[in-house]
Amino acid sequence: MQRTEIATLGEFGLIKHLTEDIKLHHSSSKYGVGDDAAVLSYDNKMTLVTTDMLLEGIHFDLTYFPLKHLGYKAAVVNFSDIYAMNGCPKQITVSLGISKRFSVEDIDALYAGIRLACEHYNVDIVGGDTCSSMTGLTISITCIGEAEAGNIVYRNGAKENDLVCVTGDLGGAYMGLQLLEREKSVLKGAGEDTQPNFEGKEYLLERQLKPEARRDIIQQLAEADIKPTAMMDISDGLSSEMLHICKQSKVGCRLYEEHIPIDYQTAVMAEELNMNVSTCALNGGEDYELLFTVPIGDHDKIIKIEGVKLIGSITAPELGYALIARDGNEFELKAQGWQHC
Amino acid sequence: MQRTEIATLGEFGLIKHLTEDIKLHHSSSKYGVGDDAAVLSYDNKMTLVTTDMLLEGIHFDLTYFPLKHLGYKAAVVNFSDIYAMNGCPKQITVSLGISKRFSVEDIDALYAGIRLACEHYNVDIVGGDTCSSMTGLTISITCIGEAEAGNIVYRNGAKENDLVCVTGDLGGAYMGLQLLEREKSVLKGAGEDTQPNFEGKEYLLERQLKPEARRDIIQQLAEADIKPTAMMDISDGLSSEMLHICKQSKVGCRLYEEHIPIDYQTAVMAEELNMNVSTCALNGGEDYELLFTVPIGDHDKIIKIEGVKLIGSITAPELGYALIARDGNEFELKAQGWQHC
Repeated sequence: MQRTEIATLGEFGLIKHLTEDIKLHHSSSKYGVGDDAAVLSYDNKMTLVTTDMLLEGIHFDLTYFPLKHLGYKAAVVNFSDIYAMNGCPKQITVSLGISKRFSVEDIDALYAGIRLACEHYNVDIVGGDTCSSMTGLTISITCIGEAEAGNIVYRNGAKENDLVCVTGDLGGAYMGLQLLEREKSVLKGAGEDTQPNFEGKEYLLERQLKPEARRDIIQQLAEADIKPTAMMDISDGLSSEMLHICKQSKVGCRLYEEHIPIDYQTAVMAEELNMNVSTCALNGGEDYELLFTVPIGDHDKIIKIEGVKLIGSITAPELGYALIARDGNEFELKAQGWQHC
Repeated sequence: MQRTEIATLGEFGLIKHLTEDIKLHHSSSKYGVGDDAAVLSYDNKMTLVTTDMLLEGIHFDLTYFPLKHLGYKAAVVNFSDIYAMNGCPKQITVSLGISKRFSVEDIDALYAGIRLACEHYNVDIVGGDTCSSMTGLTISITCIGEAEAGNIVYRNGAKENDLVCVTGDLGGAYMGLQLLEREKSVLKGAGEDTQPNFEGKEYLLERQLKPEARRDIIQQLAEADIKPTAMMDISDGLSSEMLHICKQSKVGCRLYEEHIPIDYQTAVMAEELNMNVSTCALNGGEDYELLFTVPIGDHDKIIKIEGVKLIGSITAPELGYALIARDGNEFELKAQGWQHC
């Protein structure tokens, strides 16, 4: 593969190369890349802002994370935060710190992934910063979105007797990571012909390498006229996020292990690794599913939405944070899990 | 000094520690730290967004950059970008990548600087991200500001015969950096009692270690009813920024070396280092002064504003980018300078 050193373009040259054919699609994007700041117009709407930093060696390992996928994921995790407010992502800024190890072609691949995510979710790239780093790759993306003032859903609105809902299935991204780490260590020192074996585990790879944000659920909730009382996305694990909602809402909860949605491939992989699959689903991060609560009166509407599972209910704060195991035993829900940081 | 390991707090603990007593001051800051995204309200105003990433070893050297100053500067450089659009900064998000080398006290010092800058410029901290890094310190700040739609000043509006104006003086921050680098190499291997000698050069240190954004000038321009035709802040050097304005405005320029404002300490330091002081002023970066153009009809108003110097004029594009030296010789203005990246 061709390798063009970034130094041949320089900072301004690289920015131009990466951004010159970017088009703006939203009426709220008034001016994008190319000035001291981007100009946005959010008349009569609330503006949502979220930011995420991804660091090589901490959040991703390039030995198995293709740069295009990494770019896609870096953008999507930000969109997910805006959807988790019941909003719609509209713009991002992209800051990159790039060491000499990376070529222009590498950064093109990364940017192609970011742009693909932006196309897919209809988001404009309106600015950023590109500079060299001493070591490794640093990606910092800020996403700006919009919502009607009355539609925003915070983490602190869950009420006693609300239903606890989760989208998709959990633990898959974590199992995908375990799989990639296992293949990496198997391949270390193996001959060049050795190929990693991912057969029958494609879903786990996809969960880790190309997560999607649940725009579809946000749209379906709106169509069904359901406004969650509290919501967040699951980046650090179900237990951790459930406790955030409970603590910020000053309520307790009862979750049922048997109702936590788990994909077949996740279960098989956990078995292979001799891990408890529920523990993975409770504490594995990066699924980017939505965790939310709705009033019990919405029960009949919510069960009609495909991809949403009821996993428990909100209780009085003095009842604490309970996990009811399959055998009926009750445990205290704890955030054990997954912390990059 | 006490040293508390960040691991004793964990990610969420550190975020709480850093942000729990943050208060929001602006009516546009509806909800700050503590949810998936911050919520802002920019009714009837344009929203401005800018972002800057600072990486250890590239943008700063902690052997002579105190963390509190670094925090202050990291925030101010973002405010400067918003002022350069003729806007007003209102909110920031702060993302930090922190290696094990740093203690809670270190990050407290950094954050104290960020908060001091926010107090000074009346800006709310509304969100961010904090995570560990493999090596070094990474700071990524995004600033959101506001402006009336009709007041925004881009880089692309300079017209033939406009006056070229610059605020403050130039080259000081670059000379401050040279001074710090010199003392660093002098002190290497010297006894512990050896103290760096900065006497008579305090202004240069301040320019490098504690730059300010020119809010005062933006306010005075508004009071004098002057709207620049083009504007940007000088982070990469006067030559480089002037060329940005000319190219984006499709015009030429004539700048006069003798009118470029230079402080006495900058001149003395350049002499000591046997450097051409005009070259330093043209190509030294990080002064965060404003470079802007105004219609010639504003001449009498602009010369009344203290801290603004007229350094040249805008010409037809075919006349190119001219620098008139003190001896009357004409050179082509070139961006040679200062690139971190």
